[in-house]
Amino acid sequence: MDNFDFYSPTEFVFGRGREKETGRYVKKYGGRRVLIHYGSGSAVKSGLLETVKRSLEEEGLYYTELGGVKPNPRDTLVYEGTEICRREGIDFILAVGGGSCIDSSKAIAAGVFYEGDFWELYLRKSEIKKALPVGTVLTIAAAGSEGSSSSVITKESEGLKRSVNSALIRPVFSVLNPELTFSLPPYQTACGAADIMAHVLERYFTNTEEVEITDRLCEAVLITMVKEAPIAVREPENYGARANIMWAGTVAHNNSLGVGRSQDWNSHAIEHELSGRYDVAHGAGLAVIMPAWMEFVMKRGVMRFAQLAVRVFGCEMNFEAPEVTAKAGIDAFRKFLHGLGLPINLLELGAKEEDIPALVEKQGVGDGKTGGFVQLSSSDIEEIYKIALKAEV
Amino acid sequence: MDNFDFYSPTEFVFGRGREKETGRYVKKYGGRRVLIHYGSGSAVKSGLLETVKRSLEEEGLYYTELGGVKPNPRDTLVYEGTEICRREGIDFILAVGGGSCIDSSKAIAAGVFYEGDFWELYLRKSEIKKALPVGTVLTIAAAGSEGSSSSVITKESEGLKRSVNSALIRPVFSVLNPELTFSLPPYQTACGAADIMAHVLERYFTNTEEVEITDRLCEAVLITMVKEAPIAVREPENYGARANIMWAGTVAHNNSLGVGRSQDWNSHAIEHELSGRYDVAHGAGLAVIMPAWMEFVMKRGVMRFAQLAVRVFGCEMNFEAPEVTAKAGIDAFRKFLHGLGLPINLLELGAKEEDIPALVEKQGVGDGKTGGFVQLSSSDIEEIYKIALKAEV
Repeated sequence: MDNFDFYSPTEFVFGRGREKETGRYVKKYGGRRVLIHYGSGSAVKSGLLETVKRSLEEEGLYYTELGGVKPNPRDTLVYEGTEICRREGIDFILAVGGGSCIDSSKAIAAGVFYEGDFWELYLRKSEIKKALPVGTVLTIAAAGSEGSSSSVITKESEGLKRSVNSALIRPVFSVLNPELTFSLPPYQTACGAADIMAHVLERYFTNTEEVEITDRLCEAVLITMVKEAPIAVREPENYGARANIMWAGTVAHNNSLGVGRSQDWNSHAIEHELSGRYDVAHGAGLAVIMPAWMEFVMKRGVMRFAQLAVRVFGCEMNFEAPEVTAKAGIDAFRKFLHGLGLPINLLELGAKEEDIPALVEKQGVGDGKTGGFVQLSSSDIEEIYKIALKAEV
Repeated sequence: MDNFDFYSPTEFVFGRGREKETGRYVKKYGGRRVLIHYGSGSAVKSGLLETVKRSLEEEGLYYTELGGVKPNPRDTLVYEGTEICRREGIDFILAVGGGSCIDSSKAIAAGVFYEGDFWELYLRKSEIKKALPVGTVLTIAAAGSEGSSSSVITKESEGLKRSVNSALIRPVFSVLNPELTFSLPPYQTACGAADIMAHVLERYFTNTEEVEITDRLCEAVLITMVKEAPIAVREPENYGARANIMWAGTVAHNNSLGVGRSQDWNSHAIEHELSGRYDVAHGAGLAVIMPAWMEFVMKRGVMRFAQLAVRVFGCEMNFEAPEVTAKAGIDAFRKFLHGLGLPINLLELGAKEEDIPALVEKQGVGDGKTGGFVQLSSSDIEEIYKIALKAEV
């Protein structure tokens, strides 16, 4: 196990009806003038936005609002948000939505205090030194942004997706009411499940030894997802399934599963190019890329893949030929994703074979290598895209 | 899943050599005048205390010290500590030791600001309103106090053990270096393992439904302990085993495994009377009480006990007679504890059959009932003691 620091000070407010307490928590964390940041009309239509506003009013808090966050959140809205914050003297950002909305809120929170173009923070040309506190009312279990220190933004003009990491943008509180996810369509529920599982798997594939505790914790969350995701897709208003998934999504990405071990994140890096370009849901892109990545790197860690197959997907261990078990696990994972209604190859995403070179180039690995579990070159990434192109169950 | 709040803002500083950074963390959390609180001579002999002092000096921090904490920490030392703090204007308590030392530090931290007798806080006659910040340098993986909001103190004159819970006494940081546990004798290592597993099991036995995620997380930690504890007992300087156990001990008790579910805590309550009276190690008392408690309540939750048996102890499920599997799991647990070198019956602890009525009475359940998973009366507790009296593997 490697040395590590773990600090997860977000206050989680979990359960039925908890969004009514939002105002109290904003106040607790020093908010007096609030920017409510949200996405599409669903938070409006469902009445959630009204509930949240009422709870702010009950605490005597001022608020203004900025809607319009879309999946793969754009830099353009971030500029708009920082301007509002400066103009209105905002001291707290409240994200009401999913990961995109939270990521956009984090970008605004950091951008407000940054004198240059906030995009420089995402290009890692500069570091976040100060940020407004961010609180969240989560409506989609997927990105884990409600408990994480990261944010991903897309530069609209270039279709360029980049991420930033800082303890300063970790939400101070997150309201998680599983009921708020009842209205998610099955496809979005499935995309969220793929994203959650990818967050675990990117940590699971490691070269660090003697990490039994985090291995087992990772498997615990994966097993939970294998059980609960199909239920939520089938029965959108099943509270138990929604609750287990929602908490799994937070645990999957607050790094409690990834401490003290090297991590990979190549599937995410590859996928970001996909969703940056085709504007597909991140989870759908991951459903295509993850199993393809697994097939490509499997030979470099057969026993770890066999472990996943046996412990998570209930495959029988083939002691004579562990690679058979390893492959069976990958197949089971792809079948599982397909069963949730997710795409499993690039064609289904609308990508074509001839797009592959441009996708590889855009990732910018160039002549270098990238990744934690297995270091990939540009040509390795091209191979992964090729596996992903026409993969079937 | 029940509604819950989860807030675990302790900063964990994990790994080899991290105790050298103690001063930096004390300073980060506002400490200028520090009380170093420690236990027996082992922190002195090992040179740990010197290392910690040097790191405080490097940051230019003033410190004074109070040693002498013993297992089952006493109220008397707490009075002494609060007096020192008041007299010396202490603004930070640094616990260098195990759970007893941390619990004593928490009591001092709260006691400093309490105008009456601090023991009233433990009798729940009053609430903690303010406390000094506490930091820890952990030397024993067991109690989980380094990441928890609770503290247990024994009133020496009455042999009365009582606990208190408050977010205000949760450590602001905890330094966890597994190497510091290398010097623990096998018996103490085993006691720690029993305590860690008990913290998980008290949360595992629940009547709350649809708690897949926390069930699986609990099992993950238990499986880890089943693998790693025997290694640490056999090879005290095995870093991997010590590291896994140390982090398992923290995860087991920061309540990340217990959110959204009813918990039990009867085994702990029963055991506190034992270690309050005979001054046996808490973990040794738990090794005797937990399996006896399990046998007594098993019939009230056969399938949950069978689940534990299958998922954690690798028992084969008996589909015709799940109670056989359930019992096999309890037997496996007791055998596991015995294999670690722990006592498994009351006689080994030095208790006698004729002591039982007094132990039951002291717990003070009277005509009432206590516990979460199965509500126990005084006569139920007496039955558990009787099972524990001569239990064998």
